[in-house]
Amino acid sequence: MTAHTNLCHPIPGVLLSATAARIRYQGRDDLALMALPAGARCAAVFTRNAFRAAPVLVAQRHLAVASPRYLLINSGNANAGTGEQGLADAAASCAALATLTGCRTEEVLPFSTGVIGESLPLAKLAAALPMALERLRETTWPAAARAIMTTDTLPKLATRRFTLAGGLAAVVSGMAKGAGMIRPDMATMLAFLATDLAVDQALLQLCLRDAVETSFNAITIDGDTSTNDACVLAAAGTLGNDPLDDPESPDFLTLRAAVEAVCLELATAIVHDGEGVTKLVRVRVEAARDAVEARRVADTIAHSPLVKTALFASDPNWGRILAAVGRAEVDRLEIQAVRVWLDDLCIVSRGRRDPDYSEAAGQAIMAQSEIGIRVALGRGEAATEILTCDLSYDYVRINAEYRT
Amino acid sequence: MTAHTNLCHPIPGVLLSATAARIRYQGRDDLALMALPAGARCAAVFTRNAFRAAPVLVAQRHLAVASPRYLLINSGNANAGTGEQGLADAAASCAALATLTGCRTEEVLPFSTGVIGESLPLAKLAAALPMALERLRETTWPAAARAIMTTDTLPKLATRRFTLAGGLAAVVSGMAKGAGMIRPDMATMLAFLATDLAVDQALLQLCLRDAVETSFNAITIDGDTSTNDACVLAAAGTLGNDPLDDPESPDFLTLRAAVEAVCLELATAIVHDGEGVTKLVRVRVEAARDAVEARRVADTIAHSPLVKTALFASDPNWGRILAAVGRAEVDRLEIQAVRVWLDDLCIVSRGRRDPDYSEAAGQAIMAQSEIGIRVALGRGEAATEILTCDLSYDYVRINAEYRT
Repeated sequence: MTAHTNLCHPIPGVLLSATAARIRYQGRDDLALMALPAGARCAAVFTRNAFRAAPVLVAQRHLAVASPRYLLINSGNANAGTGEQGLADAAASCAALATLTGCRTEEVLPFSTGVIGESLPLAKLAAALPMALERLRETTWPAAARAIMTTDTLPKLATRRFTLAGGLAAVVSGMAKGAGMIRPDMATMLAFLATDLAVDQALLQLCLRDAVETSFNAITIDGDTSTNDACVLAAAGTLGNDPLDDPESPDFLTLRAAVEAVCLELATAIVHDGEGVTKLVRVRVEAARDAVEARRVADTIAHSPLVKTALFASDPNWGRILAAVGRAEVDRLEIQAVRVWLDDLCIVSRGRRDPDYSEAAGQAIMAQSEIGIRVALGRGEAATEILTCDLSYDYVRINAEYRT
Repeated sequence: MTAHTNLCHPIPGVLLSATAARIRYQGRDDLALMALPAGARCAAVFTRNAFRAAPVLVAQRHLAVASPRYLLINSGNANAGTGEQGLADAAASCAALATLTGCRTEEVLPFSTGVIGESLPLAKLAAALPMALERLRETTWPAAARAIMTTDTLPKLATRRFTLAGGLAAVVSGMAKGAGMIRPDMATMLAFLATDLAVDQALLQLCLRDAVETSFNAITIDGDTSTNDACVLAAAGTLGNDPLDDPESPDFLTLRAAVEAVCLELATAIVHDGEGVTKLVRVRVEAARDAVEARRVADTIAHSPLVKTALFASDPNWGRILAAVGRAEVDRLEIQAVRVWLDDLCIVSRGRRDPDYSEAAGQAIMAQSEIGIRVALGRGEAATEILTCDLSYDYVRINAEYRT
C-alpha cells in the first residue's frame, strides 16, 4: 500500500552489507551482514513459538556468553524444522565468519528466513562471506533491508533523530522484513535496530521489550506466528555519551520513545505489506477490567474470520463484532454495559443496535481504507489497541498457491 | 457434499409441523412447531456466547419453571441484538401459542435463527400459529427440518433404533440446521432430538450434555460461535418403560450411545454443509498431559488460517502444522517428543521432517476429500479429536458477499 522506502540515517560505527549468496533466490541479494563496533551492546527478543528455528536457538546461546560483533542474516531458507543438523549448520555459519574476522564464534548471531524444513546450503553462504565483509558500509541500510526480504513487496526502513538533555543529537534506525506474518514459513518477522548511544545492557533490553510490546506484538494478521521471529536493538556507543543506566532519566525515556516510534513504523509497514490486505483496522478495547482481558477481546475480534471478511466487503455487519466480544470468555460480561463504535459512530449500546445508528453511516466508514473498531466493556480502566487487516480472496490465493 | 435427507423414524406422541409465516423468506416454510405429550421431559444446552439472543434467554427462563409442551422455531430472523423489545417479542410469541392451545406460556420454548438486529415480526408469526397447530403430525420431521434452514443447502436428519435390555424397541430421532457456523448471524446451530423413552430429567440432561461434547462441541469451522445456538432433547415417555434413572444402567448407556450417534451424524452434516468447504479434516491430538491441553492444541491447528488454506490447496505444508502446535502455549513443550502424521504417514519426528517422509506421499493424502491430522505431544495419556474443514475462496466470497 504505502511505500516505506525512506532512507535511514546511518549509525556511526554500524556497518552493513548486502550480498548475493544464491541460497534460494537468483539475481538478488539474499545475505545481509551488520557489523557492530567493539563495546556495542545488544538486546534481543525472539519468537515464543515452541518450535524455535535453529538460528534462534544458536543466537540465544551466543547472546548468553558474548556481546555480538556481527549479525548474519540470510533469506530464502529458514533453517527451521531441521533438527540437530540445523543447529550445527547455524553454528558453522557463525564459525566461518569468526574465522574470517578473527572474532569469537559466539560474537556472531545468525538469523534465517525462508522455507521451513530444508537444510541450510552452508557452502553457498560461506562462499559469500568475504564479499559480505568487503562491502560493509555505514550507508548500506536500504540494500540490506532488501536482502532480508522474502515475500515482502517493499523494503522496510524507519529512522528517528532525537536530542539528549545535554544537547547531543542521537539517532535510531531500523530495518524489518515480514509481509504481515501471513505466511510464517516464508514471512518470518525480523527487525534490526541500532542507535549510536551507549546504553547499559539491562536497560537496553527493557527498552526493546517495551517497544516491541506496543508495536510488533500489537499487530496481528491471522494469529499465526513464526518459528524464526526475532528483533534486535544494538547500542553502538559511538556517540560518546556516558552509558544510559537510569530507567527514569529523561534521556532514557527519549530513547525509548524513539525506539518505539521506529518499531511502530516498521510494524505498520509489515501490516501494509501483507499481500491480500485491502484495509488497515485498529481494534481498540477499553474500559476492561485488566490488560489481559482487553487484549483477549481485541484478539478475538481481530482474528475472527467473520469480522475480517465483513471488513473486506465493507459491510457494517456489527452482529459479527458483537458475537466475537461475546465469545471472548470475559468473566460475567454485562452485555448492557458494552458499547461498540466504528471510528466515532456508536453502533451498539445497551445490548442492541444504537437508536441513532444508521446503516448508511456505518457503510460510509466501512468503505474507508483505514477503519477503527472500538469496544468499551464497561468494567474498568484497562485498554489496549492492536493493528490488523481484513481477510480477502487474495489471502486465500496467496496462502493456498504458495509452494504449489 | 453428502446428502443427509434420510427419513426419520417418528416418535410416538411427538408431533411436528412446518408452516410459511413469511417472516423473511417467501415461498417456503419458515416456522416449525414441535408438540410434546404431557409428561414429556426436556433437556437443553445453549450457546456460551455472552450475547445470548432473546429467545435463548426466554427459553432458559421457561425451562426453569415448567416442562415444555411446545418448541416454536422460526427461521429468517434471529431476534438477537434486539434488547428489551426482543425479550418481550419472544415471550409474546410463546403467549400467543399458549392462548391458542390452553397451555401455560412457560410451557412454550422459543427458538429463532436468521438476521441479527432486526425486530421479530410478531404479527406474522402469530398469524401462522393456527395453521402450524392444525398441521401437527408425527411424520413431519423432514418438512420441519426444511423450515428451520437458513443458509443450509440440505435439511439434516438422523435417527437410530435400539433395543432395551427388556426387549422393548426404542427410537431417537433428530433434526438440525446450521451450515458450518461460518455465518453465525445467519447460520446458528439448532438441533432438536426426541425419543419415545421415559427418562428422569437430570439423567436426560446428563445424556445430552455428554453427547453434545463429543459432537456439536467437537466441530469447528472458524472458531466463531453464534448468539442463538441451542440443542434440545425431549423424552416423550410414550414407550411405556419405567423412567430411566440410573446412569450406570445398560439401558441408559444404550440411550446415550444412540443420542451421541444422532448428534454426531447431525454435526458432521453441518460441517459437510459449510459452503466453501471442500475438505473434511479430523484433527486428533494425543499423548497430551490433559484434555484441556489436547483441545487447545487441536483448536490452534483447526483454526489456523495457514493450515486451512494449505488444506484447501492440498499442500502438505507441515511447517504450518508445526508452527501451530508451537504457538498453542503448551507449558514446556519438548519438541523432540512431538510427532505429526497425515493419516498414517509420519511427517514430523524429533523436531524435524521424518527421514522416511516423502513429499509425494504427503501430497497424495492432502489430495483426499477427507484428511486426518494427528499430533502426539509425548507428554501423557490425554487425547481429543475435532472435526473441521479447509478455508477456501468460497468461504471469503460467501462471508464477504452476504448482506451486500
